[in-house]
Amino acid sequence: MSTVICPGTFDPVTNGHLDVIFRAAQMYEKVIVGVAKDSSKKPFFSLEERISFIEDEISGKNNIEVESFDSLVVKFANKHQAKAIIKGLRAVSDFEHEFQMAQLNKRLAEKVETVFIMATPKYAYLSSSAVKEIASFGGDISGLVPKKVKSRLQARNGVGG
Amino acid sequence: MSTVICPGTFDPVTNGHLDVIFRAAQMYEKVIVGVAKDSSKKPFFSLEERISFIEDEISGKNNIEVESFDSLVVKFANKHQAKAIIKGLRAVSDFEHEFQMAQLNKRLAEKVETVFIMATPKYAYLSSSAVKEIASFGGDISGLVPKKVKSRLQARNGVGG
Amino acid sequence: MSTVICPGTFDPVTNGHLDVIFRAAQMYEKVIVGVAKDSSKKPFFSLEERISFIEDEISGKNNIEVESFDSLVVKFANKHQAKAIIKGLRAVSDFEHEFQMAQLNKRLAEKVETVFIMATPKYAYLSSSAVKEIASFGGDISGLVPKKVKSRLQARNGVGG
Amino acid sequence: MSTVICPGTFDPVTNGHLDVIFRAAQMYEKVIVGVAKDSSKKPFFSLEERISFIEDEISGKNNIEVESFDSLVVKFANKHQAKAIIKGLRAVSDFEHEFQMAQLNKRLAEKVETVFIMATPKYAYLSSSAVKEIASFGGDISGLVPKKVKSRLQARNGVGG
Amino acid sequence: MSTVICPGTFDPVTNGHLDVIFRAAQMYEKVIVGVAKDSSKKPFFSLEERISFIEDEISGKNNIEVESFDSLVVKFANKHQAKAIIKGLRAVSDFEHEFQMAQLNKRLAEKVETVFIMATPKYAYLSSSAVKEIASFGGDISGLVPKKVKSRLQARNGVGG
Amino acid sequence: MSTVICPGTFDPVTNGHLDVIFRAAQMYEKVIVGVAKDSSKKPFFSLEERISFIEDEISGKNNIEVESFDSLVVKFANKHQAKAIIKGLRAVSDFEHEFQMAQLNKRLAEKVETVFIMATPKYAYLSSSAVKEIASFGGDISGLVPKKVKSRLQARNGVGG
Repeated sequence: MSTVICPGTFDPVTNGHLDVIFRAAQMYEKVIVGVAKDSSKKPFFSLEERISFIEDEISGKNNIEVESFDSLVVKFANKHQAKAIIKGLRAVSDFEHEFQMAQLNKRLAEKVETVFIMATPKYAYLSSSAVKEIASFGGDISGLVPKKVKSRLQARNGVGG
Repeated sequence: MSTVICPGTFDPVTNGHLDVIFRAAQMYEKVIVGVAKDSSKKPFFSLEERISFIEDEISGKNNIEVESFDSLVVKFANKHQAKAIIKGLRAVSDFEHEFQMAQLNKRLAEKVETVFIMATPKYAYLSSSAVKEIASFGGDISGLVPKKVKSRLQARNGVGG
Repeated sequence: MSTVICPGTFDPVTNGHLDVIFRAAQMYEKVIVGVAKDSSKKPFFSLEERISFIEDEISGKNNIEVESFDSLVVKFANKHQAKAIIKGLRAVSDFEHEFQMAQLNKRLAEKVETVFIMATPKYAYLSSSAVKEIASFGGDISGLVPKKVKSRLQARNGVGG
Repeated sequence: MSTVICPGTFDPVTNGHLDVIFRAAQMYEKVIVGVAKDSSKKPFFSLEERISFIEDEISGKNNIEVESFDSLVVKFANKHQAKAIIKGLRAVSDFEHEFQMAQLNKRLAEKVETVFIMATPKYAYLSSSAVKEIASFGGDISGLVPKKVKSRLQARNGVGG
Repeated sequence: MSTVICPGTFDPVTNGHLDVIFRAAQMYEKVIVGVAKDSSKKPFFSLEERISFIEDEISGKNNIEVESFDSLVVKFANKHQAKAIIKGLRAVSDFEHEFQMAQLNKRLAEKVETVFIMATPKYAYLSSSAVKEIASFGGDISGLVPKKVKSRLQARNGVGG
Repeated sequence: MSTVICPGTFDPVTNGHLDVIFRAAQMYEKVIVGVAKDSSKKPFFSLEERISFIEDEISGKNNIEVESFDSLVVKFANKHQAKAIIKGLRAVSDFEHEFQMAQLNKRLAEKVETVFIMATPKYAYLSSSAVKEIASFGGDISGLVPKKVKSRLQARNGVGG
């Protein structure tokens, strides 16, 4: 069975991430969304919240699962016998960083490939950090993130909802 | 009346920033320099100092004003009925970040455009952080920033002046 | 009066070009679309056709005009007393080329600025040459170019229309 | 069955192309190498030769096939009910061009994705045109292309072999 | 005598850094590796350790020396009457940052040039921070750094060695 | 003796090329400017003219020579026992192309390094093709190329001089 890993911090998941996840699920038999614990970066949302936001969006999709991981991505991939890691590319700066990561991961685990798909244009400018910054100023983030994420961000920023 | 906003942290203003501001003032009837309070980044200079450095340089220019803001840039633009935000582009990395910001701002306020002008070559390598780093090592920053900024940087770094 | 020049070969005009032209017309009092004769590149459409495609789309817009030119862009800008040339940026490769052109034009005519606006995401992948290539293989170019351009491209490629 | 298309002009196929093709064959059940007739670019090698060079290298690999095409890539993909087109990315300039092509192809055929894998570092600098240029000066291209390609290039350049 | 400076934080030195240093030593009569004290970044390894890792690798090479510095790079270069600073370039993002630094350094010391050599492909994805991250997850860093660095990283991460 | 090769088509030499050549001559004992015959590109100026433009500018400089070549650059370098090829970098697109060439040349001749210096900002936008295009429209190219080149370009374009 062809399984792919879609790893990230997802702090929080955006509609751009979901677009990549759903497109991956059209191409592969199984997609496992890997949520990094990422203790060094000090995420804004807890691991439980970050997972829960994704679970809400994938409920009903039989070939998508979500799971946390706290290791090298390639180990997480091997644990699930995934042939590939899938990532979305938005811009040249993404490309350079991902190129570096893909080469390193290839070196750490020869059999795990990293495959990329291009971000859908309307999400090409979207990032978790941009969403958090807009929300912190009370800007409207409808359409950029799932509704539940929007509510939680507004609550965290002291906006009624 | 055609008004544009020229936003930034200006920590401190450089001769590259001033070049963009003065060129904007040749093209538009009014230029409002917006100095971001930017509490998260912990600026090196206080908001008052950052504004004062700019005020010294624009005194006598009738169509340039400076004002602080603590909101989304597009709200600041709307408050002044500005049709556009103007930014200087120095390099590919600027381009990518600004592209993202421009698309997000367009989404937040459809009627506010972001327009870009290219940095003058002799300032293309100049940034506030580079200036601060050079000054911290006692390097010569004449010609990179206004004289008053140079004096204050030297004073902060314990150099006589 | 604030006039800007929007120059190009427009072989043929795409919906991406028109998006830039119409957004420019919101910001400036007058927009003059400059169609380069460009004899060296041997355009696919004649100068008359390229102008006519644009005229059809701007009819009824009072502050947009179209005119051919066969000189340096800065001379065309000076002839119309335009303060600026406006260009759309789609990608990093655009950025580099336009950066070079903007610096050269600044050197040739100090008072003519080049200002840039970012392409709307849904048109960020669009170019005249891509449209021509797709049409040559009988691909569907609806929504990428004005209807009249589509018909003419199909006719030139021997597709009924 | 999961099928992918690996399209190109392959004029001639390099060891970098073959690396992408073989890695794709590890991930997907079937890989169809699509050789573009590409009459406008006037290839150096005939279509037959370009196909034959690939056939020699994939003989014995059961899940790789080679076939010419003379249409939009997405039509070729649909003909084979391929879910994806696979491409190798070497550099930022590749990225930009491929990003544009992927978005256009997505628009022409919503269900056909383009996936990318990063070139293996030792082939990241390799291109068909570089190989042809080196060969034209009598430089050594061993290790850059299959042996048969090397012989034919030397023969075409008047070098014994 | 032609002397070049090869500056960096080297936290820790990687095989990619050593490749640049050894290639420089083939071209110039003397190479001085400058290890920045860099108090602001809070290096993972102490200055003494960072220097010692390099000393071990250059022992026996007569024209390579290592020395710490705590000033502008150009002052360090002038102190050694070096005509040039040499840096390795791996990617476009390196290029942009180094371009900026080279222009600033040229401004601070007209006579000191910065020269660049391209990273060897197999090290093009390598960075000190990537090495530290992999080691922190217990990944294998053999071949990416000298053996002694590997041992120390494993010890710091609580892995026996 | 440390010799470097500075290769190019120089069609025609610009003040940007000369800046690179003169800076190289400060760093190395001998600089040999290699002018490629380049029959495939059909240069605008003859090989004799391209060499003569450079000879005029380097007369009196004892450590700079000019010579044509019609082979791989690395063979030309080996012929002169040059340890390095030196190139100027202006922009990201230069970087990518030069990166590819440097890696290929390293593969063809292990002992010949390619070293890069960054273009002086005021020449960063300058290219031989831009100069020819401006001249063809009668634009002013003073300060971009040597006087003799300017005269010849004007003569070729039918402008008195």
